[in-house]
Amino acid sequence: MSANHSLPCVLLTGFDAFGGEYINPSSKSVRTLHGARMQGHRLIARQLPTSFARAPVVLRDALRELQPRVVICVGQAGGRAQISLERVAINVCDARIVDNDGAQPHDMPVIARGPAAYFSRLPLDACLAALHGADIPGEISNSAGTFVCNQVMYVLLHELRRQPEACAGFVHIPFIPAQVLERRSAPSMALEQIAAALRLIVAATLDPSAAPHGTHASGREH
Amino acid sequence: MSANHSLPCVLLTGFDAFGGEYINPSSKSVRTLHGARMQGHRLIARQLPTSFARAPVVLRDALRELQPRVVICVGQAGGRAQISLERVAINVCDARIVDNDGAQPHDMPVIARGPAAYFSRLPLDACLAALHGADIPGEISNSAGTFVCNQVMYVLLHELRRQPEACAGFVHIPFIPAQVLERRSAPSMALEQIAAALRLIVAATLDPSAAPHGTHASGREH
Amino acid sequence: MSANHSLPCVLLTGFDAFGGEYINPSSKSVRTLHGARMQGHRLIARQLPTSFARAPVVLRDALRELQPRVVICVGQAGGRAQISLERVAINVCDARIVDNDGAQPHDMPVIARGPAAYFSRLPLDACLAALHGADIPGEISNSAGTFVCNQVMYVLLHELRRQPEACAGFVHIPFIPAQVLERRSAPSMALEQIAAALRLIVAATLDPSAAPHGTHASGREH
Amino acid sequence: MSANHSLPCVLLTGFDAFGGEYINPSSKSVRTLHGARMQGHRLIARQLPTSFARAPVVLRDALRELQPRVVICVGQAGGRAQISLERVAINVCDARIVDNDGAQPHDMPVIARGPAAYFSRLPLDACLAALHGADIPGEISNSAGTFVCNQVMYVLLHELRRQPEACAGFVHIPFIPAQVLERRSAPSMALEQIAAALRLIVAATLDPSAAPHGTHASGREH
Repeated sequence: MSANHSLPCVLLTGFDAFGGEYINPSSKSVRTLHGARMQGHRLIARQLPTSFARAPVVLRDALRELQPRVVICVGQAGGRAQISLERVAINVCDARIVDNDGAQPHDMPVIARGPAAYFSRLPLDACLAALHGADIPGEISNSAGTFVCNQVMYVLLHELRRQPEACAGFVHIPFIPAQVLERRSAPSMALEQIAAALRLIVAATLDPSAAPHGTHASGREH
Repeated sequence: MSANHSLPCVLLTGFDAFGGEYINPSSKSVRTLHGARMQGHRLIARQLPTSFARAPVVLRDALRELQPRVVICVGQAGGRAQISLERVAINVCDARIVDNDGAQPHDMPVIARGPAAYFSRLPLDACLAALHGADIPGEISNSAGTFVCNQVMYVLLHELRRQPEACAGFVHIPFIPAQVLERRSAPSMALEQIAAALRLIVAATLDPSAAPHGTHASGREH
Repeated sequence: MSANHSLPCVLLTGFDAFGGEYINPSSKSVRTLHGARMQGHRLIARQLPTSFARAPVVLRDALRELQPRVVICVGQAGGRAQISLERVAINVCDARIVDNDGAQPHDMPVIARGPAAYFSRLPLDACLAALHGADIPGEISNSAGTFVCNQVMYVLLHELRRQPEACAGFVHIPFIPAQVLERRSAPSMALEQIAAALRLIVAATLDPSAAPHGTHASGREH
Repeated sequence: MSANHSLPCVLLTGFDAFGGEYINPSSKSVRTLHGARMQGHRLIARQLPTSFARAPVVLRDALRELQPRVVICVGQAGGRAQISLERVAINVCDARIVDNDGAQPHDMPVIARGPAAYFSRLPLDACLAALHGADIPGEISNSAGTFVCNQVMYVLLHELRRQPEACAGFVHIPFIPAQVLERRSAPSMALEQIAAALRLIVAATLDPSAAPHGTHASGREH
């Protein structure tokens, strides 16, 4: 049993490629942080399948296995130009394209009888300030969509609803440059900048002066 | 006491102008429906102030006074190109510009200790089908923002949370053409088309074959 | 020989559908003006094929047959939100999609050894003022692209280069609403508004107080 | 007199800040290349004022002094997401904002009695291939606008119209990240990536296998 394994853990997840893409920058970027240590925590990166059926299973297994103190799930939001700190996950699955299993749910709940939404439990303002302090474009987003990304964010916050000390949330990232060469006028962000952004978000979340809270409302009524 | 006043009521609200605009197409469009009758209901249009402090007061007064069976609040979403049927209101007020009273709340709840979100209780799919059937561009939107529009939608659904028979929701509309003459490349929609859209949304909501539901999840756990 | 045919002529052209669309609003809108009379002119609408090979042939035949005093070619610019008064046509054909004959030229001249560009010979400022005066969103555009629309505009102005009294130019129009029902967030403009815009552009062009000029430079060095 | 000065020269120009910005990434990026040697050429960076009156003077002085074999002028196109290889400069100055001298010309020629346009004389396809080969998002643009950037491109190509061996053109670059922190959803590109892009464009232009041509039409009829 290595000392390493006794350190508390930060879990980072990315997705496999979907929607006709050959890569998913969310996996690539979280992988660059795998094995790092920050403020007494070890960082573990895992990949989730872009599948409504399988992503929650893999996520729950990882939560059970690793018992992370911080979880940051990361997904690609092709077309967005900046790092998006997602504020809220809603209890809806409504897919405009099929997932990697061919499923395309329409207006279904993520969790039957779950609350309408969960707020992120990351310190969004502190994360945003950290990004801007490093000249990385970022913003707080009010919608994580209704595809697998939103589902994973909702499941994550639902699973942790009785662990008020855990910090958890979701970050959407832009395409990386290699993905937009054939997409006229599409924005992108360099992988190095995305990885730097994730490192800053983890650091801001672990910083004790940035108390776990997310949006005002969280940790109370859900 | 006129017979008219014994008819059940559909309340439509628009906002006054804000953000440097001289008009607000939401007021203009709901006003065109004021006094109309549809499927045994009378349509009443009211104007709300674009004010975090005053809009909820005016809305609650109207709900108490009119006891409407259907409420559709309408707001301007400058920059959007299509009719937006809002799916969800979140418990956050976070303003990028000041409201008409000079207030600019940052990350405050709409209702302290309220749930994270409420889903629309309009039959969104039926409304969308009605718009498309009339060749009017519309879509379901997953974010009503965090300005007064979202606040009003949240307050509306919170007020009606114990009246499962009431249908209520929010619709964002584009700028009208006169508002974009000096805005290069900005989309707009003709006022007549917006008014027609609202009429179709009311009709789809009143249609008994379109059972009041909004998103799957609504009417149960909130 | 009817008296009608002795009137000077305004030629309006639209295109047939292309790029997977079933309709082209440019044809639909110019057709609404066919046969009208304005300020002592008769309006004639013709359809051009969306074909690099055939459009110039049909256009030149129409110019020869009708000897128009004003020519306004109209094309669809899907994705634009406003009426675009094109300022300039460039001597390039460079297609990102195939035309209706399957042709897709890359970086070819419209006219070998032709000048790099021709400026519109419509009174752009007067046209724009007329649109805005009627609350119709419009703007002057600096690029008509490099597809068949630009080619037609270039050929038109090349053909008329020795007829300084002729007014001629190109107008791009948005999708109409029926075309964007399945295109999330895409802008559109009602066909009636587009037709009204074209009528105003013809009127502004025919108005003797709006001297034929287009951009400053035209009528001189080309 | 150092041997260095006997090398043929590549002139790169950027602009000073304008439009309320504190920096202009075009100057910053060309400065990173100043003094470098590539393929037997020395690279010289100069700054142009964002002024319709003064930019042409400074540019002409630099051309006279340096007698460059290649000139690449660079400007900021805030809001664009990719490197824009400009295809054409048009003979129009039409400013929506004032320049740094307070001037705001409307529909004026760059050069009275000059041709309507000049095509870039950079090997655009080779430059684009070089960018894409390095995973840098770039595209050929059909409009350099009608502000000082377009004016400088036009003046440059006009000055060199009798020097068929000179390669010259214009490249628009996005905002850098520090400029968009307060601009929600605005795209940007890292300065390092922009500088790498410019290096690749210079190399592709100097490469003898990439014959100087720009668009087909150039070097002939203007």
